[in-house]
Amino acid sequence: MTSAPDLHNLFYPRSIAVVGSSTKRGFVWSSGNAYINGCIKQSFHGKIFPVHPSADYILGYKCYRTIRDIRGDIDLVIFCVPASAVLDVMDACAEKKVKFVHLLTAGFTETGRASDAEVEKKLVEKARMAGIRIVGPNCMGLYCPEGGLSWNSEMPDKIGKIGMFSQSGQLATMSVASGASEGLFFSKVVSFGNASDLKAHDYLNYMAEDPKIEIIVAYLEGLTEGRAFFDAAKKISALKPLVVWKGGQTEGGARATQSHTAAMAGSFHVWQSMCRQAGIIPVNSMEEMIYTISAVKRLSLPRGSNIAVLGGAGGGGVTMTDHAEKAGLHVPHLSEKSIAKLQEVIPLEGSSVRNPLDILPHLRSRENFQKLMELLKEDPHIDALFFALHLGFIYRDAGRVGVNYFVRIMTKLQEWLEKPIYLILETFGDAQLFALRREVEETLVAHKTAVFPSFEIAAGVMKRLLDYSEYKTMN
Amino acid sequence: MTSAPDLHNLFYPRSIAVVGSSTKRGFVWSSGNAYINGCIKQSFHGKIFPVHPSADYILGYKCYRTIRDIRGDIDLVIFCVPASAVLDVMDACAEKKVKFVHLLTAGFTETGRASDAEVEKKLVEKARMAGIRIVGPNCMGLYCPEGGLSWNSEMPDKIGKIGMFSQSGQLATMSVASGASEGLFFSKVVSFGNASDLKAHDYLNYMAEDPKIEIIVAYLEGLTEGRAFFDAAKKISALKPLVVWKGGQTEGGARATQSHTAAMAGSFHVWQSMCRQAGIIPVNSMEEMIYTISAVKRLSLPRGSNIAVLGGAGGGGVTMTDHAEKAGLHVPHLSEKSIAKLQEVIPLEGSSVRNPLDILPHLRSRENFQKLMELLKEDPHIDALFFALHLGFIYRDAGRVGVNYFVRIMTKLQEWLEKPIYLILETFGDAQLFALRREVEETLVAHKTAVFPSFEIAAGVMKRLLDYSEYKTMN
Repeated sequence: MTSAPDLHNLFYPRSIAVVGSSTKRGFVWSSGNAYINGCIKQSFHGKIFPVHPSADYILGYKCYRTIRDIRGDIDLVIFCVPASAVLDVMDACAEKKVKFVHLLTAGFTETGRASDAEVEKKLVEKARMAGIRIVGPNCMGLYCPEGGLSWNSEMPDKIGKIGMFSQSGQLATMSVASGASEGLFFSKVVSFGNASDLKAHDYLNYMAEDPKIEIIVAYLEGLTEGRAFFDAAKKISALKPLVVWKGGQTEGGARATQSHTAAMAGSFHVWQSMCRQAGIIPVNSMEEMIYTISAVKRLSLPRGSNIAVLGGAGGGGVTMTDHAEKAGLHVPHLSEKSIAKLQEVIPLEGSSVRNPLDILPHLRSRENFQKLMELLKEDPHIDALFFALHLGFIYRDAGRVGVNYFVRIMTKLQEWLEKPIYLILETFGDAQLFALRREVEETLVAHKTAVFPSFEIAAGVMKRLLDYSEYKTMN
Repeated sequence: MTSAPDLHNLFYPRSIAVVGSSTKRGFVWSSGNAYINGCIKQSFHGKIFPVHPSADYILGYKCYRTIRDIRGDIDLVIFCVPASAVLDVMDACAEKKVKFVHLLTAGFTETGRASDAEVEKKLVEKARMAGIRIVGPNCMGLYCPEGGLSWNSEMPDKIGKIGMFSQSGQLATMSVASGASEGLFFSKVVSFGNASDLKAHDYLNYMAEDPKIEIIVAYLEGLTEGRAFFDAAKKISALKPLVVWKGGQTEGGARATQSHTAAMAGSFHVWQSMCRQAGIIPVNSMEEMIYTISAVKRLSLPRGSNIAVLGGAGGGGVTMTDHAEKAGLHVPHLSEKSIAKLQEVIPLEGSSVRNPLDILPHLRSRENFQKLMELLKEDPHIDALFFALHLGFIYRDAGRVGVNYFVRIMTKLQEWLEKPIYLILETFGDAQLFALRREVEETLVAHKTAVFPSFEIAAGVMKRLLDYSEYKTMN
């Protein structure tokens, strides 16, 4: 296993030069100004040096003609220049003894043209000679709110404990945005595109040792050094959860990874088997990724696959059970004792106290609700509770006061029950309820209560956590 | 094949008696008042007779002690009484020569008690003797805005062209609510629970002949007369699309159907094979159901499985392609001609003009967008366009004006392109954008443009429509 490279000054640079800044107003595609704006938004405390062939000042910062003209050390140089210019800029970086470079610049191996691939190869050679490490090329680069870095001014400045390395800048950006709206924030994100120098396992090893990161997430298209990655993953996954989304799972997808990051996607079947052996938590979509992170962060790992399904009425119970069992969970009958106790208070007509539990109308009574929770807590047949509720039912019944009351109960219940609760709040396309859900969610997640948008997503997440839990027990 | 029963006076009754109305204020669980409120909301034009043991008036309507006291004919009697009372009420219905009864009442075969099953059997016998047809028992019954019927006052009063029969009242209610927020409205819905008399194939045959219904949808848990159903389906599906969601696909789900509607779910494998042979369009969740209906209603059937994927950037292109190919679609390279033409205007760096198309930033130019659409229209490799867009990108770039402009273009494009467009508008958990999306959607769907919430859903829908299209060609 390769050791962790020292990337401290990459995520916490003391000075940044941005080559390819622009004097144009507003948004300029592929200009370096977005990075300067990102630093401003993230309260970067070091020095910023825009590089421009003729301008004196950009965004109020003194400009330099070339890297060579900058006085003092430069930890990080961000390349926002055409591919034809990168070798010259790299020469200047070498002379200036720059530590790290990141290339937004695209147009290398991924174009499929031999001459473009040749430039990428030369770039790496020059960097190796000069002891410079490269992020990219063909990527958004670095987001680290604590280090004052971002690739635009729209990323949140709140510091979290998630680390992410992603071959796609788009999916990294979406992960941060989607995460933020679920109360999930990041310590460090690196979008690393073609990975011609620093590779997935380098970022993984660094994040594994970073005490500020508790959960590691990755979007990968292909690995040039797969062995190093899986060796590292195997060592790390039992200590820090490692959630990975693999792009290029299909024939068409694999073709697309070549055009995107020049990645050879490889056999997805082999990939899956490697993930299992390395304790990686696999996900296959943005939703799966975000809600898996939420559950890893907020819920205790499940001790078994048996769930109680509460919510909806009869049809909902049937279809939720289908979703659960298709995901690999089980919906067993409650224990004889639980059934007998519930039958004391809940009529047989129009209800079911077996499992799925079709008893929602009877839970308007606080005593009934409490009794059910006590039974579920004790019931040896049940490892977790899936509670699916249409937010409109509470809101229309009991208004905002009722919703607040429900939220208070749920935040307390999670800890008391000692079994994970997968709370599903449905809003069925209603924009007003959706906004209410977002509000409610903020309070819930602040109390370590995970909220899911659909039963299918929740069931898939629990299955993944169950597999991870079993891996941890075995390893 | 059994012929269609005459259910006209069931959906368009001239008079309704509600046995089990309540004098209590507000919402009363399992009382008949919800049906009276439903009739009021739906502007029912016939006579309403509440039946109550002592009240003189309920909701302003004159009350009757029993069915027998009502003067004149009664087309439909709604039972909202305990199971212990239903045989007596049925006797009265027989004396009054009632045409149809519907039982909200539960507590029959589905409880698992032999005595309860016996009552259901006797109920059916009495009805047969008297020539009365039964909806249910253990169900919400009828929603038909044109006939003035609904099981509560919250269902929309807008009349549409979808017919639905569902063994679950909850899923029927959710379908109507979710449908409404996607601009999909219903002509007739029947929630028919235990189906002890009128069965799935009766409703299917009736809806097949109803000229007011263009698309038929069903949620089913089990069929007691499967042969009659599939024979009918086979005859109907090529003429009217028939979308079916089967509950009880798994072991646990099948156990739940027994507690719910006393249905024997049967082998799901056999079910799937029967659906294929009968040209049924199968769905497995509320989202799949709603968006399949939307596509059936709004998009032309696909001529092949090859799609162009437009939207997002590189990572999005890769993962969307994965989703498409996993769903059974294909993302081939565009034709040589298309690629060459696109390369004339779009730089190779940071883009891909193969397929998936990673060229979104270059489509800010109207000329480029038009050129792309012309190429896609002509390209023999492409059967449909998947266009995925984060609504925030347009909104932040060009504000509401830009969004409106985009909507205008999309509504025109659908017809002009002559290939179905699967438009995916993403909002990534942003409540404000979600509300904007709902607004935008109203305009789009009014112009026969289908909008999908995620790429996965859209890909699954197109695959289903492709299978259906192939079935129609063969049959």
